[in-house]
Amino acid sequence: MNEAVVLTPERILEVTEDVLRRYGLAKATVVDVARALDVSHGSVYRHFPSKASLREAVAKRWLDRIDAPLLAIANEQGSAHDRLDRWLRTLFAAKRSRVLDDPEMFETYLTLAREACAAVKCHKDTMIDQIAAILTDGVKRGEFAVGDVKATARAIFDATVRFHHPAHADEWKDADLSARVDATLALLLRGLRTA
Amino acid sequence: MNEAVVLTPERILEVTEDVLRRYGLAKATVVDVARALDVSHGSVYRHFPSKASLREAVAKRWLDRIDAPLLAIANEQGSAHDRLDRWLRTLFAAKRSRVLDDPEMFETYLTLAREACAAVKCHKDTMIDQIAAILTDGVKRGEFAVGDVKATARAIFDATVRFHHPAHADEWKDADLSARVDATLALLLRGLRTA
Repeated sequence: MNEAVVLTPERILEVTEDVLRRYGLAKATVVDVARALDVSHGSVYRHFPSKASLREAVAKRWLDRIDAPLLAIANEQGSAHDRLDRWLRTLFAAKRSRVLDDPEMFETYLTLAREACAAVKCHKDTMIDQIAAILTDGVKRGEFAVGDVKATARAIFDATVRFHHPAHADEWKDADLSARVDATLALLLRGLRTA
Repeated sequence: MNEAVVLTPERILEVTEDVLRRYGLAKATVVDVARALDVSHGSVYRHFPSKASLREAVAKRWLDRIDAPLLAIANEQGSAHDRLDRWLRTLFAAKRSRVLDDPEMFETYLTLAREACAAVKCHKDTMIDQIAAILTDGVKRGEFAVGDVKATARAIFDATVRFHHPAHADEWKDADLSARVDATLALLLRGLRTA
């Protein structure tokens, strides 16, 4: 047992991801994680008091990795039109690369994220809040005319489901994907313009 | 055997639907259809030379039933804005009622429609052509400003996937569905307006 090395939550989560990748979600246990870290499972439980809390933290870490670059775009200054366009394309690309590069891990993370939805604020809501922030900014800047910001943010999220919802992952390999993204975003952004 | 009654293709298709409902897609055979019609299976084969052609005809009949009211709206005169709005809502309602009222038969029809996709023109293409026709009309009437009609028609189809693609059927039971439909359609229709 190697208890000398400082066991941080971050280190536990990193190793948990490796363990999930190796054993799969159904088989991976806290004992496997402890063994891979060369510590007692009690040491893991000191940071994550239950298997559920560990799973939730893994989900949160995964969602944060998707979320961080999006939040950065939402918080930028400058044209709201360009930011919304870039924000949506960044979301599509993040989902696309994760699903297509490593479909098994994507499935694992997705299951964990769904479980965590009650505890952590649903990722979807965070996404819609970020879109709403860009819209509010666009209205202030005189770029957008939006009646109900929250409803419109949700409409933008709903109207781009084909490009970010994993149920459509099979369609993300199509040669015409980028042309379809362009056409949809152009239409949505036109719908936001001040008349 | 009751060969005296005139055996029309329509009658065969009606009975085939009953047989599919009773036995399921995997188990239903042409012999079952013939037995339900009280005719020899040769009589069925006279109209549909193979099981595949019978399945294809069932799919086509199902798609035509979805398609007919939509085509009627596409061919109407009057405001293109209102027609597009109504066309989309009619599509959403047709899908929604079929999936929620009879999920098993929906699954059966969906499988048949996918098989038939090579033979019959894909239903999706027909849908997009109808949207394109309304858009063209809207441009002529001075209601819509649309650069590439075909690409924009596809964008409208893509942007409404959440409301007509069966992968999202679980979300069609949500209490806020109609508010979400309203917000998305309002945004899309605004994007089509002449400036």
